[in-house]
Amino acid sequence: MNVVYRNTPRAAAATVDGLAAFGVATVHEAQGRTGLLAPSLRPIYAGARIAGSAVTVSVAPCDNWMIHVAVEQCSPGDILVVAPTSVSDAGYFGELLGSSLQARGVRGLIIDAGVRDVRDLTAIAFPVWSKCVSAQGTVKETLGSVNIPVVCGGGLVNPGDIVIADDDGVCIVPRREAEATLAKCTAREEKEATVRIRLKAGELGLDIYSMRERLAERGLVYRDAPPDA
Amino acid sequence: MNVVYRNTPRAAAATVDGLAAFGVATVHEAQGRTGLLAPSLRPIYAGARIAGSAVTVSVAPCDNWMIHVAVEQCSPGDILVVAPTSVSDAGYFGELLGSSLQARGVRGLIIDAGVRDVRDLTAIAFPVWSKCVSAQGTVKETLGSVNIPVVCGGGLVNPGDIVIADDDGVCIVPRREAEATLAKCTAREEKEATVRIRLKAGELGLDIYSMRERLAERGLVYRDAPPDA
Amino acid sequence: MNVVYRNTPRAAAATVDGLAAFGVATVHEAQGRTGLLAPSLRPIYAGARIAGSAVTVSVAPCDNWMIHVAVEQCSPGDILVVAPTSVSDAGYFGELLGSSLQARGVRGLIIDAGVRDVRDLTAIAFPVWSKCVSAQGTVKETLGSVNIPVVCGGGLVNPGDIVIADDDGVCIVPRREAEATLAKCTAREEKEATVRIRLKAGELGLDIYSMRERLAERGLVYRDAPPDA
Amino acid sequence: MNVVYRNTPRAAAATVDGLAAFGVATVHEAQGRTGLLAPSLRPIYAGARIAGSAVTVSVAPCDNWMIHVAVEQCSPGDILVVAPTSVSDAGYFGELLGSSLQARGVRGLIIDAGVRDVRDLTAIAFPVWSKCVSAQGTVKETLGSVNIPVVCGGGLVNPGDIVIADDDGVCIVPRREAEATLAKCTAREEKEATVRIRLKAGELGLDIYSMRERLAERGLVYRDAPPDA
Amino acid sequence: MNVVYRNTPRAAAATVDGLAAFGVATVHEAQGRTGLLAPSLRPIYAGARIAGSAVTVSVAPCDNWMIHVAVEQCSPGDILVVAPTSVSDAGYFGELLGSSLQARGVRGLIIDAGVRDVRDLTAIAFPVWSKCVSAQGTVKETLGSVNIPVVCGGGLVNPGDIVIADDDGVCIVPRREAEATLAKCTAREEKEATVRIRLKAGELGLDIYSMRERLAERGLVYRDAPPDA
Amino acid sequence: MNVVYRNTPRAAAATVDGLAAFGVATVHEAQGRTGLLAPSLRPIYAGARIAGSAVTVSVAPCDNWMIHVAVEQCSPGDILVVAPTSVSDAGYFGELLGSSLQARGVRGLIIDAGVRDVRDLTAIAFPVWSKCVSAQGTVKETLGSVNIPVVCGGGLVNPGDIVIADDDGVCIVPRREAEATLAKCTAREEKEATVRIRLKAGELGLDIYSMRERLAERGLVYRDAPPDA
Repeated sequence: MNVVYRNTPRAAAATVDGLAAFGVATVHEAQGRTGLLAPSLRPIYAGARIAGSAVTVSVAPCDNWMIHVAVEQCSPGDILVVAPTSVSDAGYFGELLGSSLQARGVRGLIIDAGVRDVRDLTAIAFPVWSKCVSAQGTVKETLGSVNIPVVCGGGLVNPGDIVIADDDGVCIVPRREAEATLAKCTAREEKEATVRIRLKAGELGLDIYSMRERLAERGLVYRDAPPDA
Repeated sequence: MNVVYRNTPRAAAATVDGLAAFGVATVHEAQGRTGLLAPSLRPIYAGARIAGSAVTVSVAPCDNWMIHVAVEQCSPGDILVVAPTSVSDAGYFGELLGSSLQARGVRGLIIDAGVRDVRDLTAIAFPVWSKCVSAQGTVKETLGSVNIPVVCGGGLVNPGDIVIADDDGVCIVPRREAEATLAKCTAREEKEATVRIRLKAGELGLDIYSMRERLAERGLVYRDAPPDA
Repeated sequence: MNVVYRNTPRAAAATVDGLAAFGVATVHEAQGRTGLLAPSLRPIYAGARIAGSAVTVSVAPCDNWMIHVAVEQCSPGDILVVAPTSVSDAGYFGELLGSSLQARGVRGLIIDAGVRDVRDLTAIAFPVWSKCVSAQGTVKETLGSVNIPVVCGGGLVNPGDIVIADDDGVCIVPRREAEATLAKCTAREEKEATVRIRLKAGELGLDIYSMRERLAERGLVYRDAPPDA
Repeated sequence: MNVVYRNTPRAAAATVDGLAAFGVATVHEAQGRTGLLAPSLRPIYAGARIAGSAVTVSVAPCDNWMIHVAVEQCSPGDILVVAPTSVSDAGYFGELLGSSLQARGVRGLIIDAGVRDVRDLTAIAFPVWSKCVSAQGTVKETLGSVNIPVVCGGGLVNPGDIVIADDDGVCIVPRREAEATLAKCTAREEKEATVRIRLKAGELGLDIYSMRERLAERGLVYRDAPPDA
Repeated sequence: MNVVYRNTPRAAAATVDGLAAFGVATVHEAQGRTGLLAPSLRPIYAGARIAGSAVTVSVAPCDNWMIHVAVEQCSPGDILVVAPTSVSDAGYFGELLGSSLQARGVRGLIIDAGVRDVRDLTAIAFPVWSKCVSAQGTVKETLGSVNIPVVCGGGLVNPGDIVIADDDGVCIVPRREAEATLAKCTAREEKEATVRIRLKAGELGLDIYSMRERLAERGLVYRDAPPDA
Repeated sequence: MNVVYRNTPRAAAATVDGLAAFGVATVHEAQGRTGLLAPSLRPIYAGARIAGSAVTVSVAPCDNWMIHVAVEQCSPGDILVVAPTSVSDAGYFGELLGSSLQARGVRGLIIDAGVRDVRDLTAIAFPVWSKCVSAQGTVKETLGSVNIPVVCGGGLVNPGDIVIADDDGVCIVPRREAEATLAKCTAREEKEATVRIRLKAGELGLDIYSMRERLAERGLVYRDAPPDA
């Protein structure tokens, strides 16, 4: 059965925005190296960094009808997450849909398929992470669902999950863990700031992280290279 | 037999330039969602949008001899379309060939293989859509043909066909359909202009395109999300 | 056995820097079309062109421990070359390691796997050529080796080999052949400068390279295209 | 946190075995074209057709420690489903583990990575569906989890879900829907039996399924091919 | 416009059957190393070798409606060639369609997408060359065309072309060149029979083909391996 | 410079044959999980298991000339290892070359490209491990080298190295380490034989390998699955 779920719960705006500030790599590490989607999802232009609440869309292959349906379910601060039910590299999304979502305050799109009009989407600064760029047209014949759990880029995304996306890719934070993850990000970042200063001053990670003893225990051997024959 | 066909017919310059203005996504839709080459063909730099008449080149794998032969057959406003007879990611084309083509008024290159000297080609603004960037050298040992039909990026390209290329990829318009396609592009763009204004004003595609009734007929169900447990 | 080789021989700095000036395509051609790594290794940002002495690192899959060990073995002018022992697209390297290497005068990283923090690495201008961008975290559990021969991007890299990298990819020059290759690059570039001027003036490569006779011998046929039906 | 869940609920044995008899294509269609894992998961030998209850294993990349842990959680009639947390094609599983599982009545393995000892596994008739065959060894250093939801082959698998696998691939049936799906399979198969007889007798699907009218409505045109020029 | 062309011309049955006897590698060589489709098209079972006249089908992605339409256009000795208009790995074809085609004397299927029911298709000995095996279901919503030129596996196939397929892949012979190609196959095979006898007797291809002189001219050097250090 | 090295040293026949008996997975483990070539190299038929001394061939892309040259350098017990200098999936090798090698006592072929005539090669029982099956023809225009180090399937192969190949893939043992590796294989196999008996009797690897304590130290938690809601 094809269903559109309305009024799915979202995390608090402050939590979502807090996560955006840390970016994908920090959030992924903070929540125990989980939640990262496949590296095949790449941004259409460099430099964007966003976070938002997932509105999920399950679409039939080469059919973008449900994206039009999903627009109505979007609120300011959301990010659309689109996954076809069969692998595809067609172009399900272009500038008109981007303008429509932008008018509703949506922050970006994650799609495990293709996108088009990338020049125009770049011009209006609507960021997209997609598997490819393709102008291949789609139809509007087969129903799908909105706000059901979907697998996108090899990862599970539930409606209302927090999506973080930047030049490093896309990471998903389960809604109920958003606040805890934000706290861990803050702690992690503080620790890294100190390490960064020491590294830039020329100290070695081997010493800062006290790795030498454990390497020796494991049996690492140091030798001089053979003399230049 | 290996043949170079000379003086292949081209479409009118005004028609070709008209198509360039619309870009790949619009042209592809206007001609009934046909003609798009594979999304694996990507531009070496962002922002170029060109159209031109195809001069086609069938080359032996890792052999760029026939590209040198093809240069002589090019006229101002042409685009070179190169397809190896066996899959390859070597670098068949670099800055010297780019300079040579540019001196003859050629607008760009489409190649189902690799290209090199991309920094220099970017500097002289000679746009290329290729399967990859590779410096792997090629030889000049085996003949091929110029201006025969080729399959490039999974699509058929006849000499004299119109090639449109931009950040969305590459689209082919059969020469005899160029004028009709141009007319359809104009019509399509006018329609989209109105829709764009309404979408930016916050109207929904669901309403603009009157989709709600057909969705209901197909059985789409709306439900409130379960309360937050 | 896991070993770290220290004090591997390097080529003279002037030779290394000379090769950087020519770039990947010229160096690859000058040494007989050898040494190019796979085109899957792409730069995280455009425009960088570097050369340096290879410090090689063989790492366990999804384990970046040995990169930390390798930092200590790096000298100014080096380039780190990292290859996992089993295929992987995790993110072994980020901004902290980049800062650490930069503090030691290292010029860049080649990695047959993923990299993360690309926005920050771009900001500090630390260039990386990698198979992909991925924030997927790695562990520090299994030993590897430093400065042993590794296969990276399908090519063999010995410690101390010269690595040249730019927008066209990555090329390896065996250390003992560095000076001879540099001489060949100079010769090649001089020859190309003359050809470039003639091509830009509209002369054809067919004539400059005297190809017409050999093409005819091989049986190339010229025909007029059939009249427009 | 890394957890092993014990005593997960399973579907009734009769239901599971009933699904096996129908095979992947029928089950996938019967449950509304859902549940199919990626076609990259292929059997190591032809002809096996199994169904069983999923015991899921989330493993670190190139680390098969948790498979050893999972064996203890398996009961007769189960199928092991293994997914690494980062993409990998190493060989996590071989004949010793196959013998161990077989001794516990496990029916087969689904793994989104590599398998080895395929000759021996074939000899003992332990069927495996894997992404590849690879002898690349793995370590036992990093924890994972058993019987948590995993994404395998692009699809979500919950512990206790029914796994159906044959030469067509792998399909997942949610445990609570197993009986309903079995009933739909029976109904579907009965209908197909009649159609099969008519098709073998030379009747056309166009007539059996009454497609001609709808094709005409959509505008399908029939023409004779142009005379042989 | 979507069209079904009826009564397309076919080559003589004796010519088609003659080509089947030679197989893909010989036919491909005999017609000047052209016509081979991509190696991604693999047989679902080993040992089949067929030739037949192409009935081509252009289908919408994940939509197999036009295959049902195409069945009616098939005659004994034909081979169905199916190409989606956008890349897809769904399963467009199964045992029911196979039985239907077999009832009409069709010899096999070439499809640039997925196939399912491979166990049943093998049992009834209906050979298929496909990009993958997948049970992923398709819809019947969008028209396509029958017996128009299609690009399948990277090669152009016209209706009525002769398709040869065996364990080496799939090769296309243009209809008008079928007889000439058959003659060249016979000549080639005769020549190879003599060579085969000499090679099996231990003679070297270097001598049979008189390669030594040309190798020396090109500069090939023979050296003894360095003594075992 | 293109060179053919003659009379490269080989390991003792007894050592080579001893390694064949153990197969790829055991040899790879015995030498510390090194030496395995990429899993993309697959056998053309199941069941073969061979070992032999490598005769290496570096060929130009889509050019099989040097394979003819290499035949003369082969002795009974050798295995030919072929690597193109640029990625390619053409068919460099067929039944005639197979018959020629078989007449010289060569045991099989490893090729990082395509092979053809697989039905005939299977019939004469000449085993091949290749990247793909393809009938795409090659030329004889460009020199390469015989018995130089090559990178094949992502691994380094020196002439005279021992090649082991079976259904699990291909593994390389450096010639000087062959005897030591054989001894380690024997030791490993003896240990596994005991484990196999205990596993088949139903004992758990967790107990046989005493893993429980270390798992607990790392923090693995066991819980009962939540009751069936």
